[in-house]
Amino acid sequence: MRYEEFTIEGRNAVIEAFRSGKPIDKLFILDGSSDGPIQSIKREAAKHGTIIKYVQKERLDQISQTGSHQGVIAYAAAYEYADVSDILETARQKDEAPFIFLLDNIEDPHNLGAIIRTANLAGAHGVIIPKDRSVGLTAAVAKASAGALNYTPVARVTNLGRTIEELKEEGLWFVCADMDGTVMYDLDLKGAIGLVIGSEGNGVGKLVKEKCDFTASIPMKGDIDSLNASVAAGVLAYEIVRQRMQA
Amino acid sequence: MRYEEFTIEGRNAVIEAFRSGKPIDKLFILDGSSDGPIQSIKREAAKHGTIIKYVQKERLDQISQTGSHQGVIAYAAAYEYADVSDILETARQKDEAPFIFLLDNIEDPHNLGAIIRTANLAGAHGVIIPKDRSVGLTAAVAKASAGALNYTPVARVTNLGRTIEELKEEGLWFVCADMDGTVMYDLDLKGAIGLVIGSEGNGVGKLVKEKCDFTASIPMKGDIDSLNASVAAGVLAYEIVRQRMQA
Repeated sequence: MRYEEFTIEGRNAVIEAFRSGKPIDKLFILDGSSDGPIQSIKREAAKHGTIIKYVQKERLDQISQTGSHQGVIAYAAAYEYADVSDILETARQKDEAPFIFLLDNIEDPHNLGAIIRTANLAGAHGVIIPKDRSVGLTAAVAKASAGALNYTPVARVTNLGRTIEELKEEGLWFVCADMDGTVMYDLDLKGAIGLVIGSEGNGVGKLVKEKCDFTASIPMKGDIDSLNASVAAGVLAYEIVRQRMQA
Repeated sequence: MRYEEFTIEGRNAVIEAFRSGKPIDKLFILDGSSDGPIQSIKREAAKHGTIIKYVQKERLDQISQTGSHQGVIAYAAAYEYADVSDILETARQKDEAPFIFLLDNIEDPHNLGAIIRTANLAGAHGVIIPKDRSVGLTAAVAKASAGALNYTPVARVTNLGRTIEELKEEGLWFVCADMDGTVMYDLDLKGAIGLVIGSEGNGVGKLVKEKCDFTASIPMKGDIDSLNASVAAGVLAYEIVRQRMQA
């Protein structure tokens, strides 16, 4: 996978990109604009779960590569997303029990990139993110992944809960990271496993959490609330690595 | 500890700040200036290991809060650094074997902040950073620490190697993170311990590394080189937490 992000500028081009199913990572719209085409674009964005940023004209002029953005600029990723089946196939080829990261609500590109980097080094076979409520594979994510995006497949799914159900039929168990869970050292994390990580603010969504078999917590011995999301993902992933190495 | 960063502007003010021992985190100097007072400031900066950024006049005008910077602006931290003895005292008060993070060469403020955050939650008693080759406790560090800076003491020392020697006399063992080390699961990391973490690019400096009793590595099962520095610190710190919980 090679990465190149490009901008799609102007109303028709952006509507067309959405309708053709091109993955749009980010959408900038001129603050205050609300005419017909802009309304259509907002509807498409809502349908695809794309995050909209409302900005001033100066910002759009700055981002624009064509000079004629008409108040709308979309960022599309040239990285291709993998399918969940590709991730399972990777595990099969290595003759290993599947080990997959599932990320719910990770909106910070640095955290997403760092987590993909961790997934690669922890020997996970892939990463699954939801289409909505998550950043896509933007340039910032690629950079923070330190090259891991070229090796570790990332799949984007419509419904994380449904994907968990499907993967359970493939023999995976799911462990969800949450503060109220069992201390991770006391759980058996061997075998075919999906590690579900939520955002710093909101954690794993309720519906996704209910699908998980276990809830694992990291022991917190300090004064503040929680670890950085990518640090938490690393700590949990390496407890899985430790247990797999003993198997 | 409450944090407020403030600027010190103008030649005399900056020279005075250095001479009074005020901790200067960052120093901006007008690119190309080399008169007497500027030379004095550069000498003070070198003496205190302060990182200098040479910038254009526009940048200085932008940063300036007084409007009269005379080509020099320093950032000073209002956070007070702790002493190493304060960190040991914290451990003593909690009746715990000391657990200290030592950071060599961490220059990225987000990583430094995330590591202080991890130190807090892993139950470490404090963090030690070198005066040179490290960012200070800037606003970005405070933000990334998510409040941990208010609880976890950070000490700044002139010579990390010498501090290690002194702490060995207090009964601490030192483990240094490096790729060529023993897999961390195979080391005994219980007891009074100092965890030494280096930068992503350069790792732990040679002189510091030689002072360490062990070198610990995180198993790397992927295609790329290394974990993000704050993720690596978290993974190692929690292996120490795991072992301490068994003790």
